[in-house]
This record gives sequence, structure tokens and C-alpha cells, in this order.
Amino acid sequence: MAYQSINFENKLGLFSEQWTPKVIAEINDYQFKIVKIEGDFVWHSHADTDEAFIVLDGQLRIDFKNGYVNFSAGEMYVVPKGMEHKPYAEKEVKMLLIEPRGVLNTGDEQASEITAVNESPLVC
Amino acid sequence: MAYQSINFENKLGLFSEQWTPKVIAEINDYQFKIVKIEGDFVWHSHADTDEAFIVLDGQLRIDFKNGYVNFSAGEMYVVPKGMEHKPYAEKEVKMLLIEPRGVLNTGDEQASEITAVNESPLVC
Repeated sequence: MAYQSINFENKLGLFSEQWTPKVIAEINDYQFKIVKIEGDFVWHSHADTDEAFIVLDGQLRIDFKNGYVNFSAGEMYVVPKGMEHKPYAEKEVKMLLIEPRGVLNTGDEQASEITAVNESPLVC
Repeated sequence: MAYQSINFENKLGLFSEQWTPKVIAEINDYQFKIVKIEGDFVWHSHADTDEAFIVLDGQLRIDFKNGYVNFSAGEMYVVPKGMEHKPYAEKEVKMLLIEPRGVLNTGDEQASEITAVNESPLVC
């Protein structure tokens, strides 16, 4: 029996909307989410968890209150818990997020119209 | 202040030995480890945790008692907890593992000479 792997490019081809993380895999109570972003997000932080970003395509900048990090495909960065940050992409970036189940994209900010519902696995 | 991202290719260039996972990042109590493998590993399982594999370069096969999965760069697979598996690479594969801190590469098998000490962060 041949089991099926998860292909990032194939999964990214299943949707075009930006800023809407899609769960593609889970280990224990952690989720792997793919997302496409372009432009500026809101400042936010996650009081209870670190958050890992892996860029799959494009270039991502994450702004911090005292600096920034720039990274591209083949690179990752971990934003520590409690650290205010704001993702930014001049052109569309495709990336993989790894974080505990239930984390909202807008962090500890009040949920708003840009808060994504990210608990539903992507239909394959 | 410019923060530094983690570049997989750069980190993989820092060592040549196979079957020795190196911790390159952590989120909470989970670790990201890079490893180079070639040939056959031992059958093992992890009773308490799922394990995520992301191939960075090359082609990996994971054998299960009732099948297998083949995957390449840009693809991932999650081995469920308790599932016996045996990674195999005909040619060297470079990959990223994501799993809770403290997981041994040989799983619940008795630690042996192939059990890697994987708790030390890679010196950058």
C-alpha cells in the first residue's frame, strides 16, 4: 500500500485567497498551516506560544518593535512568545506556519474581520 | 536591528555525518532538527508522539509494516504515534524533522550505538 505524502506546491494550488491559513497536517496538538500573504498585517503577539515560519516561495519580512528579519524560500524563523510582530510581504509570499492547535493569526488582539478561522483541514 | 533567519542549506553545510539529527530551532517544547541519511535505518516507533518529516533535498522512503511512502523535496509526511516505520534513502537525503524535545531517533527501541544524542543545538 502506497501512502500519500503532502506536497506543498499542490496544496498551495488549491486556493488563491491571502491571509487565510489552511491546516495541512498535525503532529500531536501542533498544526502545519500553509498561507499566502501580501502587504502588511497587523501588529500582534501570542502570549502563550512561540510561532515558526518557513518560507516556501517569495520573501517575507517580519517587523519587530526594535528591528526586523528578512527571509526567503529555504529559510525559517521562530518568533518567541510574547514578542510583538508584524509580517509584511512586498509581493505574495507562500509559507508554512507551525504552532499549537487553536492559535489565531491575529494573536491576542481582539478577533476581527481579518481573524482567520484556521481549524479546518484543507480538503485535498 | 536585523535579526538572523535560519537557512537550511547553510546549516546542512556545517556537517557531513549521517544519521545524527542537529537541533536548529525550537518552538515551545518542540524541536526542528536537520539530518542527512543514506541507506536503511532500524524499524522503530514512538509510542507517545507523532513525528513530522519534511524533505529538503533528495528522495526519502519510509517503510511501514503494511506499505510505504515515497517523498521528495517540497513534501512532508507525518508518521502517527505508535506506527512502526523504517526510513530508507537510496542516495543521501537531507531533511527536517519536527517532534517534541527529547525524542530519540531510534524511538522506543533500546538505545544503541545508532541512537543519536540530539539535544545539543547546532553551533552556528
